[in-house]
Amino acid sequence: MKIEEIKSPDFLKDMNNEELNELCKDIRSFLVSSISKTGGHLSSNLGIVEVSVALLKVFNTPKDKIIYDVGHQSYVHKILTGRAKDFVTLRQYGGISGFQKRNESEYDPWEAGHSSTSLSAALGMAIARDLSGNDENVIAVIGDGALGGGMSLEALNHISDVSSKVIIVLNDNEMSISKPVGAVTSILSSLRMSKFYRDSKHDLKDYLSTNFFGEKILDFLIRFRDGLKSRLLSTNFFTDIGIEYLGPIDGHNLSALESAFQMAKDHDGSIIVHVVTKKGKGYSYAENDTAGKWHGVGSFDIETGKSLKPSVKNSKSYSEIVADYLLEYKKIDPKLIVLTPAMISGSKLEKYFEAYPESSFDCGIAEEHAVTLAGALAESGMHPFISVYSSFLQRAYDQVNHDIARMKLPVVVGIDRAGLVGEDGETHHGVFDISFLRPIPNVVICEAKDYNELRSLLYTGFKSGLPFFVRYPRGSAIVDNILPVEEIKIGSYDVLCGDEDSDVCVFSYGVDLEHIVELCSSYNGRVCVVNARFFKPIDKNLLSKLTGIKTWIVYEQTQKCGGLSSAISEFITDNKLDIELCRIGIEDHFVTHGDTSTLKEIEHISLSDLKKAIEEVL
Amino acid sequence: MKIEEIKSPDFLKDMNNEELNELCKDIRSFLVSSISKTGGHLSSNLGIVEVSVALLKVFNTPKDKIIYDVGHQSYVHKILTGRAKDFVTLRQYGGISGFQKRNESEYDPWEAGHSSTSLSAALGMAIARDLSGNDENVIAVIGDGALGGGMSLEALNHISDVSSKVIIVLNDNEMSISKPVGAVTSILSSLRMSKFYRDSKHDLKDYLSTNFFGEKILDFLIRFRDGLKSRLLSTNFFTDIGIEYLGPIDGHNLSALESAFQMAKDHDGSIIVHVVTKKGKGYSYAENDTAGKWHGVGSFDIETGKSLKPSVKNSKSYSEIVADYLLEYKKIDPKLIVLTPAMISGSKLEKYFEAYPESSFDCGIAEEHAVTLAGALAESGMHPFISVYSSFLQRAYDQVNHDIARMKLPVVVGIDRAGLVGEDGETHHGVFDISFLRPIPNVVICEAKDYNELRSLLYTGFKSGLPFFVRYPRGSAIVDNILPVEEIKIGSYDVLCGDEDSDVCVFSYGVDLEHIVELCSSYNGRVCVVNARFFKPIDKNLLSKLTGIKTWIVYEQTQKCGGLSSAISEFITDNKLDIELCRIGIEDHFVTHGDTSTLKEIEHISLSDLKKAIEEVL
Repeated sequence: MKIEEIKSPDFLKDMNNEELNELCKDIRSFLVSSISKTGGHLSSNLGIVEVSVALLKVFNTPKDKIIYDVGHQSYVHKILTGRAKDFVTLRQYGGISGFQKRNESEYDPWEAGHSSTSLSAALGMAIARDLSGNDENVIAVIGDGALGGGMSLEALNHISDVSSKVIIVLNDNEMSISKPVGAVTSILSSLRMSKFYRDSKHDLKDYLSTNFFGEKILDFLIRFRDGLKSRLLSTNFFTDIGIEYLGPIDGHNLSALESAFQMAKDHDGSIIVHVVTKKGKGYSYAENDTAGKWHGVGSFDIETGKSLKPSVKNSKSYSEIVADYLLEYKKIDPKLIVLTPAMISGSKLEKYFEAYPESSFDCGIAEEHAVTLAGALAESGMHPFISVYSSFLQRAYDQVNHDIARMKLPVVVGIDRAGLVGEDGETHHGVFDISFLRPIPNVVICEAKDYNELRSLLYTGFKSGLPFFVRYPRGSAIVDNILPVEEIKIGSYDVLCGDEDSDVCVFSYGVDLEHIVELCSSYNGRVCVVNARFFKPIDKNLLSKLTGIKTWIVYEQTQKCGGLSSAISEFITDNKLDIELCRIGIEDHFVTHGDTSTLKEIEHISLSDLKKAIEEVL
Repeated sequence: MKIEEIKSPDFLKDMNNEELNELCKDIRSFLVSSISKTGGHLSSNLGIVEVSVALLKVFNTPKDKIIYDVGHQSYVHKILTGRAKDFVTLRQYGGISGFQKRNESEYDPWEAGHSSTSLSAALGMAIARDLSGNDENVIAVIGDGALGGGMSLEALNHISDVSSKVIIVLNDNEMSISKPVGAVTSILSSLRMSKFYRDSKHDLKDYLSTNFFGEKILDFLIRFRDGLKSRLLSTNFFTDIGIEYLGPIDGHNLSALESAFQMAKDHDGSIIVHVVTKKGKGYSYAENDTAGKWHGVGSFDIETGKSLKPSVKNSKSYSEIVADYLLEYKKIDPKLIVLTPAMISGSKLEKYFEAYPESSFDCGIAEEHAVTLAGALAESGMHPFISVYSSFLQRAYDQVNHDIARMKLPVVVGIDRAGLVGEDGETHHGVFDISFLRPIPNVVICEAKDYNELRSLLYTGFKSGLPFFVRYPRGSAIVDNILPVEEIKIGSYDVLCGDEDSDVCVFSYGVDLEHIVELCSSYNGRVCVVNARFFKPIDKNLLSKLTGIKTWIVYEQTQKCGGLSSAISEFITDNKLDIELCRIGIEDHFVTHGDTSTLKEIEHISLSDLKKAIEEVL
């Protein structure tokens, strides 16, 4: 069957096992072929093919609601619900999203991008269903990593307390983004080791054959669990917390999955179906990847598995530049401790974690815990560094405020993926951190203009003894001239071109400054460019010196409201200055997905928008 | 012994059981007597007397670190560590805090105020200890309600994964602030029903007598658990997640507690000691309270248990005004659903929960889950209202951003305790919500000038179909003239006195407007007062009409940075207006505890500061 021609999942109902297995093969080929061109999330989608197929076969969508936690593993769901033909536009501007999106399809009942929200969402939908007297099924598909996130556990706690039925498909791929962490993991490991699972890999069909099938049998098994010592259902963590448990099921065995989902559908009350899958299944490079390198990929050559992105000599991502500096800094400061919430690979911390296992901690998908843990390490005399993606730092707002800033604890936070991130879109752009951090007392927030300044800001952070936030973007730099780090005066700006006699002053920050200076230098000194590298504190001295310039432009790639331009606006009104301020930044809406340069055009925050603003004044 | 004369807990080491029991009685009398005068947290402290005494007897503080989760149950700890004499100043400006505070005593190793941070903090300290080659014990004392918070579960997950030893004292009082919720609760219930606990109430001493005592026995019991079917240690939720478990222990039996803590101290590895206590123990009114009324109290008469606060006719707290309106609104909108994160009593929702059990949900101390749950209810066509204290809403920043605002889901959020809250201090003032919510797209944020406008804003919120945030303060109003609700134009301000020909324009919001208008009316029309009831969107039309007035004052009781004054500053610079802006608000620091009127003086945000600012212009 031609994958691109699938209009709805209805055809699955009539397919037999053999045909379904054939379909799964075709879907895998389609995924690999399609993602090899567009880039995207590969491993998780290869791992979930049979699960997605079986869910859409057993359940009656779109009436029944299937929510994928995070949502980057919903590609198969998208393919089977009529969106295969759109995969050429995957994650591109105007194209389909890499996550579930309500406006894309009635088969997408919820949206995410951040982890661990699906159980709360599913419970809300289930409660609404019951209050409305409806009878649709609500299914949340959640990974083992996401299950360890605080919200998931809060939701499980609540689900066990109410009668509204939620079906939880626990997609246990023995691997959250990188390696798995903690108690949830060890529980799952022990479940996987159970005799039933070992048997089921081979002869699950025997156990779930017609005579074992259906609601009555399930109820029987649950009721007589203790007496029967059933191999199918055994007392464990989940039954401990009061939610029925079914599994573990071989997540690549279609008939086993169908039977299990049918049982879950027929069961009266919330139930967890534990499926064990293999990330990357069916594509050897992804299947053999243990480090999470195939989690999210750019375009690649299918045969060799090699990236098609031309490799640039000495090119390093900013994450890598930071990680390299940590390795360097550790040599002069043995008290350095590096923390990450499940982002060893994304934050390029592999080398550090390998070199210093005793002073590196992967906290799992648990930003809140990770930030407070860092605070306590600092309170105890250690020098913690934690890197968190900007949009995930949102999860730890209160921990930053209540546990770090209020106690003025010297934690250095690397805000990775700050600014527009491109293809991951709305939920991943790092455009809120400046606005939510600035009002918090005691913190320093900054961003570097290049990799050398980034290294110096990190060094400054460690020396500062303050809660210190260093932003850095997605993307790379050519690292060919590393200078010695130097302590940078906190709150100090730097004039990069022009001077106080210029006609316009442009305040900006980050790695775009290179291009801004290039642009502004062409105006023969009429445009002053300031590297406004600290969002807090701002450099009031320098600002005061520049008040002779009557037009100021703040140019940034973050929400206008609360950003640097907001700080400068406050400075102007507080000091009753007669200065015209032009603020270039993201307006009051969420920014969609697409390549960064298109997004900058769309949002009117491109370099040509800056040029236009400058030329309106000159 | 005279409680006020206690200098350090060292004297406990030499006391026998009888003397300790006598001490506990004295401490209880002191607590009741002291709190009856100053107000404070009563029930939780009465419940934890023996636990705090036993911890300080067994452990070697301040070297060993005892962290109380939240910290409002640390009064006994404070008394025994030399602060009894300061209890006359409890929670007053300049006096001792109602929570653990590092600058108060070396016996306070950590600070909180918000729930569920202690396990992360303890793990951080334990890791730092091990890396530093030290050997102090780190003990976290956490309630059953706080254990259900997401962060706690994230931390438990991590604790089970690392070797650093943390001692967790689970203070199970069968009651978080109001009633307990969820799976954690049912696990604890089943543990409490275990034969061991039932026996231990009577003859625990026999089990924990010398021959059962000490590390070796404990290790033996742990090693041979399965074989022995030990009554002391049995497989349960905690051992499932890989943390040793000891209990349940009668939390009012000193010798049992001592033995258990000694075992925990001697044990090699993290361990949970489950103690069962009775909130309010020893003071009948508090002991018999099932609704949480004695959780936090004002001054009261010890004999009668009656509040000493003069009762004012028709006086209602703003929480109550909101709750009453919900009851009223439910009659015209059956789709209303009311949610609270463990604050039924604090948010005065008892009547609603009683009247509409099927459409009211206590989500436990789980703000993140609660907010996303509300979002899913809204997505499914329900009309959810969730009330959250401003400072606790900080916990759900990302859920507001990612799950509510991004999907533009019509959730009405009541932000209770907005503004300064007084005696609870730094961690509880609701002074950040405006600044972190304003930059989030799609949301409406507002606050009413009086109870009638509050009711109308709630009504407007339900009609709006938008993410809608209504702030209201701690405190009460005389409710004697309820008017019919009316839909208020979103983003519309209201001129309360003066007009566009006035010399000064004061922008403010909330219930202080009454006094502001009173003050400003005395200037014979020279001062215009605007009820700036929407923080987002702001009323640009009205602002434009007032640009003839050349001095604007924004007067608010929230962080200046990011507050209303920031929005107005942006308006002025964006429109290149020639207006002098004076911003009265909280400077860039955390506000301590004390009565609200003193705090306003200290922070220079009192009415007389406004008067001064006005008169500098006139």
